[in-house]
Amino acid sequence: MSNMQDYNELLQQIKFDEKGLVTAIAQDADTGEVLMVAYMNADTLRQTLETGVMTYWSRSRQKVWIKGESSGHVQEVKACYIDCDGDALLFKVHQHGAACHTGHRSCFFRRWKDGGLEVHTTPLVDPEKAYGPSRT
Amino acid sequence: MSNMQDYNELLQQIKFDEKGLVTAIAQDADTGEVLMVAYMNADTLRQTLETGVMTYWSRSRQKVWIKGESSGHVQEVKACYIDCDGDALLFKVHQHGAACHTGHRSCFFRRWKDGGLEVHTTPLVDPEKAYGPSRT
Repeated sequence: MSNMQDYNELLQQIKFDEKGLVTAIAQDADTGEVLMVAYMNADTLRQTLETGVMTYWSRSRQKVWIKGESSGHVQEVKACYIDCDGDALLFKVHQHGAACHTGHRSCFFRRWKDGGLEVHTTPLVDPEKAYGPSRT
Repeated sequence: MSNMQDYNELLQQIKFDEKGLVTAIAQDADTGEVLMVAYMNADTLRQTLETGVMTYWSRSRQKVWIKGESSGHVQEVKACYIDCDGDALLFKVHQHGAACHTGHRSCFFRRWKDGGLEVHTTPLVDPEKAYGPSRT
């Protein structure tokens, strides 16, 4: 079990916002598809790196959010990058099932085109079956 | 010249934060590489869609930021997506030159590996030559 000190070099480069959060992008390690954007605090970042499973801080529920904990649609961490000014992290992940609570593989399933929004992907799973009352 | 009304369907789906901003990710349309993350307000989003050139709101300088205006490293918009909960936009772009002010093609040029940060790409350009005093 590693401790906080092991992540000091990374944590010192991160500019957490006034709520102690940093933007985290999950990208499919194989296809390059951007799957979702969420937030981490220092604790859930450490948990992500220690467990190898993407773990966010849910702003809406104000709690630790192990992505896929209830649905099984976990994201295995393959690589972690930090941007030049330290306010965003990029994770390449192996996505099990769908990243989006709607059942779409990516949360970016709506495209702006010709003055309107169109759904450009087909859901992989029925969200009613994948998710219980909580959205993970 | 289009007007604000043309973007109402998109704008109504966006949850701008308390500062009137939304997260905007730029991804290389050809390679899938995530290039950078920045922010837009309603006006710079409209400008982006109207001009076809990525235009952010600079939080540090508190002004409109036409990416590449001084360096020539503009980002041509190829597609625009919105995520399920409307707090992030994803743009597929054609990147001219380097996205990062450091000269790296992507701002995510540092990777966390084996307990340390490593620079995993080589700068495309000398930032001293590409950029003047302002960072765009």
